[in-house]
Amino acid sequence: MTEQSQQFASDNYSGICPEAWAAMEKANQGHERAYGDDQWTARAADHFRQLFETDCEVFFAFNGTAANSLALSSLCQSYHSVICSETAHVETDECGAPEFFSNGSKLLTARSENGKLTPASIREVALKRQDIHYPKPRVVTITQATEVGSVYRPEELKAISETCKELGLNLHMDGARFANACAFLGCSPAELTWKAGIDVLCFGGTKNGMAVGEAILFFNRKLAEDFDYRCKQAGQLASKMRFLSAPWVGLLENGAWLRHGQHANHCAQLLSGLVADVPGVELMFPVEANGVFLQMPEAALEQLRNKGWRFYTFIGSGGARFMCSWDTEEARVRELAADIRAVMGG
Amino acid sequence: MTEQSQQFASDNYSGICPEAWAAMEKANQGHERAYGDDQWTARAADHFRQLFETDCEVFFAFNGTAANSLALSSLCQSYHSVICSETAHVETDECGAPEFFSNGSKLLTARSENGKLTPASIREVALKRQDIHYPKPRVVTITQATEVGSVYRPEELKAISETCKELGLNLHMDGARFANACAFLGCSPAELTWKAGIDVLCFGGTKNGMAVGEAILFFNRKLAEDFDYRCKQAGQLASKMRFLSAPWVGLLENGAWLRHGQHANHCAQLLSGLVADVPGVELMFPVEANGVFLQMPEAALEQLRNKGWRFYTFIGSGGARFMCSWDTEEARVRELAADIRAVMGG
Amino acid sequence: MTEQSQQFASDNYSGICPEAWAAMEKANQGHERAYGDDQWTARAADHFRQLFETDCEVFFAFNGTAANSLALSSLCQSYHSVICSETAHVETDECGAPEFFSNGSKLLTARSENGKLTPASIREVALKRQDIHYPKPRVVTITQATEVGSVYRPEELKAISETCKELGLNLHMDGARFANACAFLGCSPAELTWKAGIDVLCFGGTKNGMAVGEAILFFNRKLAEDFDYRCKQAGQLASKMRFLSAPWVGLLENGAWLRHGQHANHCAQLLSGLVADVPGVELMFPVEANGVFLQMPEAALEQLRNKGWRFYTFIGSGGARFMCSWDTEEARVRELAADIRAVMGG
Amino acid sequence: MTEQSQQFASDNYSGICPEAWAAMEKANQGHERAYGDDQWTARAADHFRQLFETDCEVFFAFNGTAANSLALSSLCQSYHSVICSETAHVETDECGAPEFFSNGSKLLTARSENGKLTPASIREVALKRQDIHYPKPRVVTITQATEVGSVYRPEELKAISETCKELGLNLHMDGARFANACAFLGCSPAELTWKAGIDVLCFGGTKNGMAVGEAILFFNRKLAEDFDYRCKQAGQLASKMRFLSAPWVGLLENGAWLRHGQHANHCAQLLSGLVADVPGVELMFPVEANGVFLQMPEAALEQLRNKGWRFYTFIGSGGARFMCSWDTEEARVRELAADIRAVMGG
Repeated sequence: MTEQSQQFASDNYSGICPEAWAAMEKANQGHERAYGDDQWTARAADHFRQLFETDCEVFFAFNGTAANSLALSSLCQSYHSVICSETAHVETDECGAPEFFSNGSKLLTARSENGKLTPASIREVALKRQDIHYPKPRVVTITQATEVGSVYRPEELKAISETCKELGLNLHMDGARFANACAFLGCSPAELTWKAGIDVLCFGGTKNGMAVGEAILFFNRKLAEDFDYRCKQAGQLASKMRFLSAPWVGLLENGAWLRHGQHANHCAQLLSGLVADVPGVELMFPVEANGVFLQMPEAALEQLRNKGWRFYTFIGSGGARFMCSWDTEEARVRELAADIRAVMGG
Repeated sequence: MTEQSQQFASDNYSGICPEAWAAMEKANQGHERAYGDDQWTARAADHFRQLFETDCEVFFAFNGTAANSLALSSLCQSYHSVICSETAHVETDECGAPEFFSNGSKLLTARSENGKLTPASIREVALKRQDIHYPKPRVVTITQATEVGSVYRPEELKAISETCKELGLNLHMDGARFANACAFLGCSPAELTWKAGIDVLCFGGTKNGMAVGEAILFFNRKLAEDFDYRCKQAGQLASKMRFLSAPWVGLLENGAWLRHGQHANHCAQLLSGLVADVPGVELMFPVEANGVFLQMPEAALEQLRNKGWRFYTFIGSGGARFMCSWDTEEARVRELAADIRAVMGG
Repeated sequence: MTEQSQQFASDNYSGICPEAWAAMEKANQGHERAYGDDQWTARAADHFRQLFETDCEVFFAFNGTAANSLALSSLCQSYHSVICSETAHVETDECGAPEFFSNGSKLLTARSENGKLTPASIREVALKRQDIHYPKPRVVTITQATEVGSVYRPEELKAISETCKELGLNLHMDGARFANACAFLGCSPAELTWKAGIDVLCFGGTKNGMAVGEAILFFNRKLAEDFDYRCKQAGQLASKMRFLSAPWVGLLENGAWLRHGQHANHCAQLLSGLVADVPGVELMFPVEANGVFLQMPEAALEQLRNKGWRFYTFIGSGGARFMCSWDTEEARVRELAADIRAVMGG
Repeated sequence: MTEQSQQFASDNYSGICPEAWAAMEKANQGHERAYGDDQWTARAADHFRQLFETDCEVFFAFNGTAANSLALSSLCQSYHSVICSETAHVETDECGAPEFFSNGSKLLTARSENGKLTPASIREVALKRQDIHYPKPRVVTITQATEVGSVYRPEELKAISETCKELGLNLHMDGARFANACAFLGCSPAELTWKAGIDVLCFGGTKNGMAVGEAILFFNRKLAEDFDYRCKQAGQLASKMRFLSAPWVGLLENGAWLRHGQHANHCAQLLSGLVADVPGVELMFPVEANGVFLQMPEAALEQLRNKGWRFYTFIGSGGARFMCSWDTEEARVRELAADIRAVMGG
């Protein structure tokens, strides 16, 4: 039970899904033009435009750190600031990447509820200072689904984007787990993005079953001016681009992206359901996407670790995160649930 | 003859080689720890240390732009400068990436002979200015094999590194085609790097048959301090790192990296031999690695294009670059050579 | 009472002191070599070395934003972080300058008591995260005197520097009001800096009576390597440097720097003493340097404004900052105190 | 003859002119609001608008390095490039400042005639590369008067700006010696800037008689968006701003800026006239502004140095630059000319 026990540590512990793999295999035939000037990249971009029902600008970057940082730096200058939640990945887990790519844009953390920003919390930060001694707020970034497993509803997104428009702020969505959000809400990608006022989406491929590669979609096309140069300069233009784009074709052409999100979400629901009645185990956040956050005694967590289970505990004392992914096995979920019950003396 | 005709445009038009593919396939089993904390990454690093016969520090980046820029920025500060040849890829084809990653380090171009820097040309640039109004030279970067297909000999490398030591300069090697250099000289990787005084090598994987991924090897280990943070912040830390490192295991464990270089070099020799006696066709540079640079009348080049052949002509009027790669087919080489002869009226 | 009423808004509302002015006048004779290669700059540097009783490296920058940001960026790389108090000027009032100069170093705010960091609060932040997803702590910056008018004692500084050494952190002091700290404690500049383990001090000249210009003193000389290039590249090398350095000669040669600090401190003590017994007025922080922070009803503050007084209220609801400077007039202090008493119904 | 002999080394060896000094003296009365929110700064800005006959945006920076670098970085992004002449100060003497402030914008040097760019040389560089592997040209910067003492005519400026408009390039003027250009041509500042299509001018104050301080004038006002934040973040916002702006009032209100330029130009003409017939002395560039560039035998230059004269020789073997400034004395010019004649055996 060594390797399987790692299944809940992170959704990027998973491998490449069959659809992405098959597309890479097909793409690996003979020579192709480099730097995105190939048929696979064109096809992937078209799939995105079709899926999102709009003629957006599509770019590819190697990972989420870069995709989000590049997108944010295209939305503001170094003396501007970016409003995010205290739990936002760009704030807590990117080693200063947004500040590096933007040459100094400061992240301003706003209060969040279940990991979600609100018009009120954005307004509070955006209006706090109006003098040149403090970086001028210019962007809001939200994560969908959030880092604590919650999901913004379309009306929440619309309320936020209206606040942004009123305050002159661009709106960016970190969609590392965008598929899980779509799966949870049953909404179309368009409803959760441009129809709700999102300017730019970073659509995560890695957690959805790819080896590398995130897509950056500009719904507000004029913000994408010269973005290809930005990617190139920042070391994010793949020479053999087809191997970043072909997997997207695999994920998008038959809806695998959504099925993977649904499966991961389903496993999270299963886990939370199975432990719902275990005394001493508290759900820290509503389970809406693929993560389950449990409050448990530290000693119990230690026993779980001794049984070989791996999970993150960055959420605070006694908080454990269990992530499900596209390939999480239901049997493992049940084993984990049983072990949780066991260590809790259930 | 459409796709095959692109075989000489660039060595990054090629796909993934069988050895890298097989390793990826093996690596794609179950879950693995992310961010390089996996068995494949450990194995790849060990293979490098074995191959280079030294306990170097090993890192992985997504592409050559990033690998070289990160390495250079670890060797100097923003107010320092980097000496390179006029034809260096970092100067001509990285869209200002070295300047971006280093926050402003200026590239100073030095005269080169057949694309190679010399102690004299380095000295000339390094000693030209000694005042604080000009960025202080701190690094020399050389490309092995060079952008025009030539290869530095071990004694040339030693002479350069002695000059660097004397002048207080760090020495970086862009090894996008390092395998071709090793193949041509029959030297060991150690002889062409740390034994000759190289501080850092960026060893290219993409042109050698990988989908993505370059290795950065610090022979001067103290220059590698906190380099892992640098990679992370710059968006170059892969979450599913195994898919960057496993292909290296595939390339290194049975010598495929060298065989690929030998094959590409062989094809270049074949091509240059086949057209050596064609009147009006001049070799622009000695053929030592996998590129053949031919001076031909513009009209003849146009005819070649009309026949479907693709090649770069950035070298100046009438200059054409034909690149061979790990999967170039000899039959194609012969076809190309025949067409060159034909368009030249031979 | 228009202009005088602004005397308490900020200590940089004051002009050039007579000693600085006289030195500028003397320096303005004939031609002098540019860029710091002049006699005044040499003299100023020597005065600093004498005053601090050590052979430190001395540089000059135009203002405090730049001096502190340049110093911090010489102490860390972009992927490192800087620990500061929540009230630190670099965090709250520099518009992201430290992040800009360092190309992305993140500021991590630590708890402070009366504006002062403690070994415990530094340790808490420095040890919170040890993974590469978060910028590695590399520098601590403290402000002496602090932004809320308190002053670190030599033993407090020593305790902090010991913590820094233990944790591998460089220690920087923002000394915008360093003179006021020396004046309050009666300690020598050496006791409050290198003898207590400070690596670099930015010694503020502007608030002490100069037009422009801050001095940067490296007690840890090896950290100053190529710092002159850093200043030049960042637009902080004055061509007519003598006009930045001569005023320092004026301030340092006869102790004016300390007298100015003493005077400003004295005025602050006078003000706080005069309002100490006014009911409803609370001192927010101990008065140790040249600032007096009073908690008063918002309505009373409004009445003070109506009487023409200017002061900052960034400290929170009902908090007002009254700053004294080298040229604050005692008569104005008494008028202000009387008006405070009056608006409070005293 | 020690200090006077330095009069020709650089125009920034001179001190503060009487008009600037008097204005500083007046400005040094009592307290004033900081950070440019004072009457002197408002007055200086108004003087500029009047002088240039247009409602331009006016900012102040400490020196030319910063003024030009900030202006350039407001005109492009890091992945863009800036076209300048090979002799441009931003290329040769700013230690990579433009690259630092812009986070990596590359300077592309174009051929120049007598230090001046032409539509053809701009076009050549701007159109050379159109691919994303090379930074996209976005700005042209010209120096008026140039670094070799020549001056662009209004029609030359217009031709350049038309080329810029056609190619989508912003046009910046480094006016470190703008006063000398106006003085030479007898043109109005408006004719040499916005009427000729200049977007932004950096108007040099230091070489014109100030201690510190350059003005940045945006004629294209929308390019100035949030430029005040840019200045602040980059350490270029003076707290006691009145001491940067008041000298401008002194220079502008009675035309001193132009008289100073005329005087310096006159001295240069005098010098070049006096040595015109000395055998073996060749004028390297037409004398149009305040610099005289003479080709002389190295031995003769050495003799001049031995007589105590100081001058720059960066122009190449045997080339010497003699700069005149607002306070150059005619007697010194005649002495220098006589010595030149003497050392040449005349």
